[in-house]
Order: sequence, then structure tokens, then C-alpha cells
Amino acid sequence: MQFADRLNNVETSAIRELFKLLGKPGIISFAGGLPSPKTFPVDAFAKACEVVLGHDGAAALQYAVSEGYAPLREAIADLLPWNVDPDQVLITTGSQQALDLIAKVLIDEGSRVLVETPTYLGALQAFTPMEPQVVAVDSDDEGVLVDDLTAKVGSGADKARFLYVLPNFQNPTGRTMTEARRAAVAAAALKTGVPVIEDNPYGDLWFDTPPPAPLTARNPEGCIYLGSFSKVLAPGLRLGFVVAPKAVYPKLLQAKQAADLHSPGFNQRMIAEVMKDGFLDRHVPTIRALYKSQRDAMLEALAKHFPDSNQQPDTNLTWNTPAGGMFLWARLPVGMKAVDLLPFAVDKGVAFVPGAPFYADHGDERTLRLSFVTPSVEEIHRGVAALAAAIKERQGI
Amino acid sequence: MQFADRLNNVETSAIRELFKLLGKPGIISFAGGLPSPKTFPVDAFAKACEVVLGHDGAAALQYAVSEGYAPLREAIADLLPWNVDPDQVLITTGSQQALDLIAKVLIDEGSRVLVETPTYLGALQAFTPMEPQVVAVDSDDEGVLVDDLTAKVGSGADKARFLYVLPNFQNPTGRTMTEARRAAVAAAALKTGVPVIEDNPYGDLWFDTPPPAPLTARNPEGCIYLGSFSKVLAPGLRLGFVVAPKAVYPKLLQAKQAADLHSPGFNQRMIAEVMKDGFLDRHVPTIRALYKSQRDAMLEALAKHFPDSNQQPDTNLTWNTPAGGMFLWARLPVGMKAVDLLPFAVDKGVAFVPGAPFYADHGDERTLRLSFVTPSVEEIHRGVAALAAAIKERQGI
Repeated sequence: MQFADRLNNVETSAIRELFKLLGKPGIISFAGGLPSPKTFPVDAFAKACEVVLGHDGAAALQYAVSEGYAPLREAIADLLPWNVDPDQVLITTGSQQALDLIAKVLIDEGSRVLVETPTYLGALQAFTPMEPQVVAVDSDDEGVLVDDLTAKVGSGADKARFLYVLPNFQNPTGRTMTEARRAAVAAAALKTGVPVIEDNPYGDLWFDTPPPAPLTARNPEGCIYLGSFSKVLAPGLRLGFVVAPKAVYPKLLQAKQAADLHSPGFNQRMIAEVMKDGFLDRHVPTIRALYKSQRDAMLEALAKHFPDSNQQPDTNLTWNTPAGGMFLWARLPVGMKAVDLLPFAVDKGVAFVPGAPFYADHGDERTLRLSFVTPSVEEIHRGVAALAAAIKERQGI
Repeated sequence: MQFADRLNNVETSAIRELFKLLGKPGIISFAGGLPSPKTFPVDAFAKACEVVLGHDGAAALQYAVSEGYAPLREAIADLLPWNVDPDQVLITTGSQQALDLIAKVLIDEGSRVLVETPTYLGALQAFTPMEPQVVAVDSDDEGVLVDDLTAKVGSGADKARFLYVLPNFQNPTGRTMTEARRAAVAAAALKTGVPVIEDNPYGDLWFDTPPPAPLTARNPEGCIYLGSFSKVLAPGLRLGFVVAPKAVYPKLLQAKQAADLHSPGFNQRMIAEVMKDGFLDRHVPTIRALYKSQRDAMLEALAKHFPDSNQQPDTNLTWNTPAGGMFLWARLPVGMKAVDLLPFAVDKGVAFVPGAPFYADHGDERTLRLSFVTPSVEEIHRGVAALAAAIKERQGI
């Protein structure tokens, strides 16, 4: 068979291939980005199944409209901190599908698309089949730098189709865009007329204080907002959503229809049922508390094994302190590549994700992503010890 | 926002827009193509939910591999009537997603793609965003005509990327490809080297005798086979599958990863649990019996209201006799367009789908699709009476 040219740019997903490694017995994984299964409200789902199949079984199991289950769309609109009409909410098969739909609707071959440095690998993978020219905007630990954003928007036929950002506890870096940066980015986007795709799967998982208001809340007509139930309820139901301006919504809906007709009505009803009576208000704080304790354990273990990190960053692992979410971003000593270290780390019993694939252009090969949410506190300590041992062995220490 | 050029060819889905009409109170719908909710094994699903969440809840609710749940892939391979390795089975979010993935993997802008006349509208909608040149192969009531197929395969850069066929109880026509035609089409595809995409959502829904063996069974290396649980269990779980040659599988898998990471693991486990112990062998015959009785009711009602159809086809509705599936194909009297009749029919209390959108090129505007599976026998009689009244009124009879 003759494959489409667009596949020339596609490589097998590093993320998905990593999922297979997780099956290796005894490995402590900082790699996967899987929510902790301790946070899945299994009993609430079991009860919801009973209610949905008992009261609404035929409808839950039938074909349904592409927009999504109306009560779920209303519940989502109610949750969001700006004025959202439920008619602007499109239910998607995970928020990954939203990225696929956006790519189809907004990207032509060669279109300029702006992303953070680094950015979510799954977004790059969703955009790639539509063959954009992906341009990385310089970023610091608060997100994209406004001057570089403005410089890279382009003009005329080469004007960027959108800026893709993940402002809260970003995947992969765990960083958060400050209020001042959000205001500046929103203003620059408005001024240059570049649409913003705001991806927010982790925003509810803050540890001490909620993050600043979304970019979309500042300019709803210029933004497409993506949310997900994967991190606050469970990823295995594959439900996310898009909030789009009314001019864009019908295009996304057409793409959704062609892609999978609609997301499972049964799953949508289960989520809507579980969300009733303020369940998320009681449940999400338990996730925050768990993840915060695990982040703290990872910070503690890193400080213990790399006590000289602040004084001698070139010969140590360095890392940041995420204020929420699932990931911490680290950097190996000078001269050491994460991808080369990985097999030695796996040999010592710990896995992580090398950071380079998350860069749209020249990856920083010293970087790595550490997820602190799946392993237990005890495993986090053992895993960091194993990581430290692998690094020191490679350093000949 | 600047939309992608590919949207210029996309129109709102007629199928999906029709779903909205179905909510109109009192309308008897021959339009939707929805399986009868009477056939949904709600109790079996309720039991399966309990088992899945009780024994395997954390895994069912977690992220999972893109290929699909291994026991379900094995069960599918076991069901198929040729030698299938479970590693060739990819679980999709409904078989509509399989069409989207195939389009991404096999279609370049301008690629020649061959389809039946008429063909499944949802396939045209899935292919369109990749901007193929869709070529309709002349077809009779047994499917594509081999001479025209061979004539339209093309060569060199213009060689057809694939032939898309739905050999069993086709949507929209209800027709079935005979054994002789399958053998001839398979031979022609092999000889010209054109891959076959074989879509088989309805094959299990035969009324008197099973249909002939799939085209894929005759040449597994040259075919991609699509199946679905939507018609034998329930569409609301959105689960289908692709069986692909080993050289093609990794490409489809990459496209799947980028599209939605994976189909819901919870739903996959529910289906696998329900399928245990030969459930389909007991359940599917009940669907066949129900749909056969409803097809018979529609044939009887049509014969009653159009008794002169055989003698005077130009001034009567004419129709075929599907041997399975969900649809019957009909043709209005000379000079009458289905799309013009529809509002008058809805006014009389009955809905159908005009046939023209199912044609890749010049649609036969007299044709219409009648689904006989959702309404009851009594409603079928009333609906056909209403349809006949609308036609006769338009004829001035």
C-alpha cells in the first residue's frame, strides 16, 4: 500500500511506547504521566453505572448527537470561571482528540503554528499529520516570552494559525504562567490577532493556591479552551471537552462527526452522574493533597541525593518546584544526555521520560520529566535513590 | 481565525443533522440508522460493569495502550472467519474512527480513492478532510462492477490508493455482494494491486443465510477490514476495530495514538466481559429475528400501498429486498426528488434519508434510504402509509 506523505514526519509516539515499559516488573516509573489509581472514585462510578443503566440504559447505549450529552455540557459550562454558553462546549474523546480536531480545522500544510519551549509532546503528535511548520517560542519558567511571541507571529499568508499553550503545571515542565505573564501574553495575542489554544488538563491540581484565571477568560472570542476529566476523575473513560467561539464551533463539530460520530454516551452519562451534588468539590481536594505529599517526597529525596545541586549545578541534577500537577522538570549534569542515561536508570530500577522530544526544535538533551503521582512515597524515595546512583555511576563517582 | 483549506469541501453531516430531527415528537423515523434499543443487552452490561469495576476497576479507569485491551483483541481475532493474529487487531472509537485513521494513513491531497455507487456517507465524510479525488465505481445490486473497477484503478502517481466497499447489507442500499462478485472483485483488486478497505458493520445481521466470506479472507495482505460492536451490542460504547496487514498496522497505530491515545479501556473491558461464554451466539440471533420481522413488515406495507409498483415503476415507489442489515433502498416516481418530498413526509409524520448525498458523484435524486429497525411493526405500517400519502399528494393523486 502507498502511504500518505504526511506519515514521513510522524515517528512512533515516545509517550505511548513508554506505556509498554511500565509493564516491566519491579520498575519504579517516574515516566508515565498516569494519574494515581488511588484517586479513581471506583465506588462512585459503580453507583453511577447502576443509575445510568437502570434509568437511562437505552439512551446511554444508543447513538447520540456529536456535540455531546446536554447535561454534561451544561455542567462543564457551570464549572468554568467565565461566562460559557453550553452550546460552545463540545465533548471529545479525551482532550487528545480536541488537539486532532483543532489541527484539522486550523492547520494547512506549511501553516505556522507557535508552541512553548518545551511543549506537550502529544500536541506535537496531533498537529504533525496536518503538516504544519511548528515554531518554538522562547520560554522561561513562567511560560512563553512575549517579545519572542510577537516576533514570531508572522504576517500575511505566513501568519501563525495559533499559539498553543498549557499555562497550568505544564506537561512536561510542571511550570505555571504567572498572572503578569498571562496578562501580557493575552494582550500580545489580541494585538497581533493570533488565536490562543489553551490546554488545561491539570489546572484543578494546585497544591497551595489556585492558578491565575485562564487566558480564555480574558478574551473568549480569541481562544479555544481544552479541558479533561482524565486527571480529576479517570482517564480510562476518555472524556475531555473543547470550549470554542461560536464562529469556530461548527467547524470543530464537523471534524468531530467525521472522526468518531460522537464520544461514548454511556461514559458521558457516567461522568455527569458522578459530578452531581458537588462531588468534584469533595473529591479533587483529596487528589491535591495526595499529589502534594508526593511532590514533597520527591523534592525531599532529590535534596537528599543531590545536596550540592544549588552550589554546583553543572555537576549535579537540578530541578524545579511545581506548584501543582503531576510533573517535575529536571536537568542532568553538563555533558550527560537523558536518553543515554535511561537504560542505566532502568537497569537500576527506575524510569523517566527524556525531555528532548518535548521540544519542537532543538531539544535540550540534558532535560528529563519526572512524574511524582503514580509511585508511592516509599517508591519515590527508592526511585530517586536509583536515579542518583545511575547518574553518579555515569559520572564515575 | 483562519480555517484550513480542507474545510472548503466539508459540509455539515446530513446524517448527524438528521439525528436532531428524531427528537421531534410523534415522527416515525425511517431515517436514523439507529439500532433498535430493544436489542441492547442492558442487563448483561450492568453485570459486566459490576465485574469490571469490582475486579479490575483501577486498570479499567487508567490510561492504556493504543492497540487496545489484549483479551478483546484476542476475542475479535477468534471470531473472524480467517486466520487473524490478535496483533493485527486495533481497537477504534467506533468504526467511524477507523475510516478517519485510514484516510490519514493512505490519502494524500488529490489521491484517487474508489467507492461504490452509492456508498456510506460517513466514509465520504471521513475521507474528505484528507482531500482525495473520490471516484465512484459503477455498481449494480450486487455491488461494484468489475470492468469499471479495473478501468478506474488508474496507474502511476494517479493509481487509486484503495477501493472502499461495504459488501454485506450495505449502508445505504441494503444490497449484498454475491459470492461470484466477491471472487471477481478480489481477483481484480489483486491483479491491479489496489488495496481493499472492507467495512463490515452489518455482516452478522443476516436473515436467512449468512453472507459469503469477506473479501479480506481471500487476500488478507491486500485488505484492511473494519468491524464494529455498534450493531450487535450497542453503539453508545463507541467500539469498533480494524484488522490490518502487519506492514500497515504500525501506521494506523501511530494515527490512533495522535487521534485519541486509546479507546476507553472501561468500555473495552465491558464488551470483552459481555462477550464471554458465547454470549453473541445467543444474542445476535434475537436481533436477526427482530430485524427480519420488521423488514417483512416494511415489505408488506410497501406492497400494500404501492400494489402497481412492479407493473408501473415510473409512477410508483420501487424498492429492493435486503437479505439482512438495517436498510431498504427505494426510488420515487419519475420526476420526484427525495429531498423535496422530505418536508411533506415529515408533515405527514414520517422521516427518511434522501439518497443523493450517498453518491460520490452525480446522485440519483429519486432514491431514498428506509431504515426498518428502529420503529415497531405497527409504526412501520403507519409510517409507510404516511409516506405513500405524501407521495400521492405530490403526484396530485
